[in-house]
Amino acid sequence: MSGVIVTGPPKADAQDVEALAGYGVATVHEAMGRTGLLPAHLRPIQQGTRVAGAAVTLLSWPGDNLMIHAAVEQCGEGDLLVVTTTSPSTDGMFGELFATALQRRGVRGLVIDAGVRDTQELRRLGFPAWAAAVSAQGTVKATGGSVNVPVAIGGQVIRPGDVILADDDGVIVVPREEARRAAEASAAREAKEAASRAAFHDGQLGLDRYGLREKLAQLGVTYASYEDHVGGGAPVRDGAGA
Amino acid sequence: MSGVIVTGPPKADAQDVEALAGYGVATVHEAMGRTGLLPAHLRPIQQGTRVAGAAVTLLSWPGDNLMIHAAVEQCGEGDLLVVTTTSPSTDGMFGELFATALQRRGVRGLVIDAGVRDTQELRRLGFPAWAAAVSAQGTVKATGGSVNVPVAIGGQVIRPGDVILADDDGVIVVPREEARRAAEASAAREAKEAASRAAFHDGQLGLDRYGLREKLAQLGVTYASYEDHVGGGAPVRDGAGA
Amino acid sequence: MSGVIVTGPPKADAQDVEALAGYGVATVHEAMGRTGLLPAHLRPIQQGTRVAGAAVTLLSWPGDNLMIHAAVEQCGEGDLLVVTTTSPSTDGMFGELFATALQRRGVRGLVIDAGVRDTQELRRLGFPAWAAAVSAQGTVKATGGSVNVPVAIGGQVIRPGDVILADDDGVIVVPREEARRAAEASAAREAKEAASRAAFHDGQLGLDRYGLREKLAQLGVTYASYEDHVGGGAPVRDGAGA
Amino acid sequence: MSGVIVTGPPKADAQDVEALAGYGVATVHEAMGRTGLLPAHLRPIQQGTRVAGAAVTLLSWPGDNLMIHAAVEQCGEGDLLVVTTTSPSTDGMFGELFATALQRRGVRGLVIDAGVRDTQELRRLGFPAWAAAVSAQGTVKATGGSVNVPVAIGGQVIRPGDVILADDDGVIVVPREEARRAAEASAAREAKEAASRAAFHDGQLGLDRYGLREKLAQLGVTYASYEDHVGGGAPVRDGAGA
Amino acid sequence: MSGVIVTGPPKADAQDVEALAGYGVATVHEAMGRTGLLPAHLRPIQQGTRVAGAAVTLLSWPGDNLMIHAAVEQCGEGDLLVVTTTSPSTDGMFGELFATALQRRGVRGLVIDAGVRDTQELRRLGFPAWAAAVSAQGTVKATGGSVNVPVAIGGQVIRPGDVILADDDGVIVVPREEARRAAEASAAREAKEAASRAAFHDGQLGLDRYGLREKLAQLGVTYASYEDHVGGGAPVRDGAGA
Amino acid sequence: MSGVIVTGPPKADAQDVEALAGYGVATVHEAMGRTGLLPAHLRPIQQGTRVAGAAVTLLSWPGDNLMIHAAVEQCGEGDLLVVTTTSPSTDGMFGELFATALQRRGVRGLVIDAGVRDTQELRRLGFPAWAAAVSAQGTVKATGGSVNVPVAIGGQVIRPGDVILADDDGVIVVPREEARRAAEASAAREAKEAASRAAFHDGQLGLDRYGLREKLAQLGVTYASYEDHVGGGAPVRDGAGA
Repeated sequence: MSGVIVTGPPKADAQDVEALAGYGVATVHEAMGRTGLLPAHLRPIQQGTRVAGAAVTLLSWPGDNLMIHAAVEQCGEGDLLVVTTTSPSTDGMFGELFATALQRRGVRGLVIDAGVRDTQELRRLGFPAWAAAVSAQGTVKATGGSVNVPVAIGGQVIRPGDVILADDDGVIVVPREEARRAAEASAAREAKEAASRAAFHDGQLGLDRYGLREKLAQLGVTYASYEDHVGGGAPVRDGAGA
Repeated sequence: MSGVIVTGPPKADAQDVEALAGYGVATVHEAMGRTGLLPAHLRPIQQGTRVAGAAVTLLSWPGDNLMIHAAVEQCGEGDLLVVTTTSPSTDGMFGELFATALQRRGVRGLVIDAGVRDTQELRRLGFPAWAAAVSAQGTVKATGGSVNVPVAIGGQVIRPGDVILADDDGVIVVPREEARRAAEASAAREAKEAASRAAFHDGQLGLDRYGLREKLAQLGVTYASYEDHVGGGAPVRDGAGA
Repeated sequence: MSGVIVTGPPKADAQDVEALAGYGVATVHEAMGRTGLLPAHLRPIQQGTRVAGAAVTLLSWPGDNLMIHAAVEQCGEGDLLVVTTTSPSTDGMFGELFATALQRRGVRGLVIDAGVRDTQELRRLGFPAWAAAVSAQGTVKATGGSVNVPVAIGGQVIRPGDVILADDDGVIVVPREEARRAAEASAAREAKEAASRAAFHDGQLGLDRYGLREKLAQLGVTYASYEDHVGGGAPVRDGAGA
Repeated sequence: MSGVIVTGPPKADAQDVEALAGYGVATVHEAMGRTGLLPAHLRPIQQGTRVAGAAVTLLSWPGDNLMIHAAVEQCGEGDLLVVTTTSPSTDGMFGELFATALQRRGVRGLVIDAGVRDTQELRRLGFPAWAAAVSAQGTVKATGGSVNVPVAIGGQVIRPGDVILADDDGVIVVPREEARRAAEASAAREAKEAASRAAFHDGQLGLDRYGLREKLAQLGVTYASYEDHVGGGAPVRDGAGA
Repeated sequence: MSGVIVTGPPKADAQDVEALAGYGVATVHEAMGRTGLLPAHLRPIQQGTRVAGAAVTLLSWPGDNLMIHAAVEQCGEGDLLVVTTTSPSTDGMFGELFATALQRRGVRGLVIDAGVRDTQELRRLGFPAWAAAVSAQGTVKATGGSVNVPVAIGGQVIRPGDVILADDDGVIVVPREEARRAAEASAAREAKEAASRAAFHDGQLGLDRYGLREKLAQLGVTYASYEDHVGGGAPVRDGAGA
Repeated sequence: MSGVIVTGPPKADAQDVEALAGYGVATVHEAMGRTGLLPAHLRPIQQGTRVAGAAVTLLSWPGDNLMIHAAVEQCGEGDLLVVTTTSPSTDGMFGELFATALQRRGVRGLVIDAGVRDTQELRRLGFPAWAAAVSAQGTVKATGGSVNVPVAIGGQVIRPGDVILADDDGVIVVPREEARRAAEASAAREAKEAASRAAFHDGQLGLDRYGLREKLAQLGVTYASYEDHVGGGAPVRDGAGA
């Protein structure tokens, strides 16, 4: 496989990236109309870290980390490396040495739809990573690939320069052109959530706050006392109703 | 899908629930004759927390959290919310706002055979959760379901008011009528385990303590010195024997 | 199933085991020519622990822990227990009582291609474990098996007395005859990595350090400015190139 | 594990079972208000066979087929054997000899949430099976279990005597008390489907037949020509919309 | 979720689609430089069928088939429906009635990254389908989505009008602009494969035909007689070499 | 990765291989004391074919089929190719051209713990294959590996020259030294099974034939009429008993 290394892609505005870093992934996901979320199999190797950066994207052959070396040169302050492979792989393509090189360049972290290794060292370095697997399995440097081309993970496309936001809940991509709007919508969402949080803390019910009692009635969901209902002895699927 | 919200189901005695909270899931599982264990894919989002509560059960459409709003109203002091879906889903149906509402009502935690989000906030709130997935994916409020009906996860049925006990090892259900007996049996089991622990700590072998040498002999398991046996160079399946 | 309990197998030299414990799994894996790594589904139940020991191996029937009792007697100072089953199982075959017995005998830890339970207690005891699953599901003592025979996990064979090294990245086996050579090669590898780490920290690129620019050119990987390339609007697979 | 073999459970009426055998699993699932469906991991080992029977249920230890021998005696004309295990297993607990014994007794088929073997022979015999796995792995006869007790697979409870219906789409359980009602509802459903089939065959649209255009409008789903929409070059998540 | 139904997207030229239908998925994949292949979890429900069509794409909420009704109206002669969901789902969103409606409109088949049902009827109708799951689980019509927007499955983006080619090996997408080139490259590839097939049939070795002996030597792969090599008694990883 | 190609390994006697081909995988598995079975994820791409051959083994880098070319030269009449990779892969490493080359050399089939493609053509050729995946994904020829070294799949080691037997139930390995004994034991097993089959056909019960009634009693399994037992209304886990 040959490929191309694209240089100088447009990037989301740094201020917008920083603004987005102030919100959780779930909040931004809601603010963006529930779009952009990467699949749940990408898990953090650390706990309690949230990070945002501009994507440097990478498409690599499985079992081969040659193109990560090429990508490092394309990474700079505020970037976040996004690694994909042409077919599923759990190999530990990325470890402490890459993290050292990237950290020196101001890179914020790693999202990899394959494996990562040296996880204890990455935690010690404070270089955050979200990965599909942890594996010490090493890789070769034998096959080409591409850097800074659009890649897809699950149902989401990530273009170079798009914003990646990641925390304990997972990873989301925000198109670079929408970063500002997303940050503003997230602020609005957070304000709305703060009000709901306060209301729920004071004992209000979502049923009332969101006017859902009528919705339940429309859908034909009824209330019954335990005595009137057939109760705990009935088969499960009776309860499930239709 | 329509459904029913059952009110006022019988609940396990609060004292029995508290008593069960004093034992680990593995201990109660043994004390109950190895019954009631929920499947291993339900994992805690925190470490080192053990909690027991009376189940408020919920059957929901995938990708839809309308019925959780309905369930909140049915939850009270000492309860634990158990969420299931009509087909497999990893969506993050539950997050910080629900936790705030439930915590205010004295609810002890969440078991959900689907996804959870806002995990960092849940840990900060001290609201424990056991889930099949972590995902920021939001949900709609469009389809009915049922509350406080018997539900099943894996091979186990959970009726409203049954005791749910959860810790780092997983989740177990104890039928409400058997809560007291289970607590007593767990105390007996723990005493027996304490004696075994002391014996093992002193160097006794399980082979002797449980009389297993005779069992091995009956089964035809033999001893051989490494020299007499074909040893490490032999293929694996020879060692596996028959 | 009957079986055999092999006594007195040869073991890796204790000094070599200790030497290997000084290196991470990923380092030893590289030093050994990328061989010996156990599959990535074996995950630690604790974080930040590295341990090495001489394998006491075990092949057991699923859902049955009789042979672990037999294996305890064969374990001693510096050993590490490796448990496999004849078919896939997630049952919690191993818990706190076994850990107590093994710790008393100087055993370093557990690798089990099945389930473990009492995980909170194991962490409290400081008895490290790597497992395929966490499950409170108990087991019976009804069927025979073998101890200290060669076993295989994933594509790797483990013979009694081989060195097992495990950390946050996973588990590796080093044949007992190669333990010294592996430790020496790991020292050399670590020295080489230290030099690379320093160079990367100083800003050198892997492309230059490893002479990979020529490799990229040979493979037909080209560079293009974003403007010259079709860019972010192009379909993903165009970027992937050929 | 001990257990109990329950004799003489009530059974669904044979005529109702036969009536249900006239409909597909998907039809009955709809007719029952979308309840009773067993999980999708149960797959047929043959193609083009549909069968219905009264459940003889079985809970067994993994890796052990002792209780299937006990269950055979409880099976008779028109029954269908349902096998579950106390924890996940892929072992081939059932094969040609059991099928021979059951076929002689008039049993209609097998549903097993574990493994099956001798699949070619079962197809040759015309004894249909739905299983979680195909595996030649044999089992022991060492541990007890129960026959004709309620069991659960996925979110569904199956009681002895309930109707099991299975075809290429999967497996459904119908409570024995509801068998007649389910057959009648399935007949009505099929009539309705036949009308829809004819209408669709004639070119009518579901949008019109089910009045869904208004629903789309209510939900805010809009129409746009390709030229007005940003089109194929836009990122995926723009299209996903909110 | 709201959404948009895009009308009148550009489509690949019908002659090019027909030309591509003359080649297998593996051949086109190679001819396209190993790009465009959809993930291996999409499996055919029939055997021995190859089909090509212009994609009508669909993004739907899990457990909801409302948007398939909307998509039917956008489908015409030579199209192929591609269904995705916003999060993972195995529900049987598509069955015989949809197939009847689509077949009437000249649609060639279905690719669905979710579940399909009525599989026996689909085979009888001769309406081919590739799906992530087979499940009778029905769906609701409650939530919006989009039609004819770019969607992604695994690492591949599919735009409306792109060519979908599917056979027993899986599914591939060819961008509509590249359909002609792909067909031509596939013809060239097939000619080359025919020559190789003939050569291999005559006994030539790939080692010689492709000049791989030198490659092996360069990589340090050596030959050894079994006697000189340590042989079958050596541990597996020795053989694996470095 | 370098590697070694071992030439001229010892092989199981051809007559013994032919003899084993007369029995099913499940029968040989039982006859061998339930050893040697490869994991259940290896599935046939055809139905109703049974084949036996002497293993030519192969360890390859994922995404790379260079070593299959090297292996072809080592294959001859009566052999069966066994392909493994150093880490998990679903890539379609093997297709019609390799099958053509191998068929010409008298090779009996393929077992591959990775992906296969051109499945329709393989079926047409009558070249049987058992694989972990079906995928059209092509591979490169860039990295070394080894031929005719011991490899492991799941918990089983396969040495060059060992017998591989495969049918619809899966794949088993018989050590070359044990091929004759295995064939004889399989004949004995089959005779025993034939007697059991006849007895079961005549209505005898396994409970009586194998003397299992006493076993059930020893284990504490009891009989209860449905009326005496708590019955179908009781929770599932009561039935599960202890």
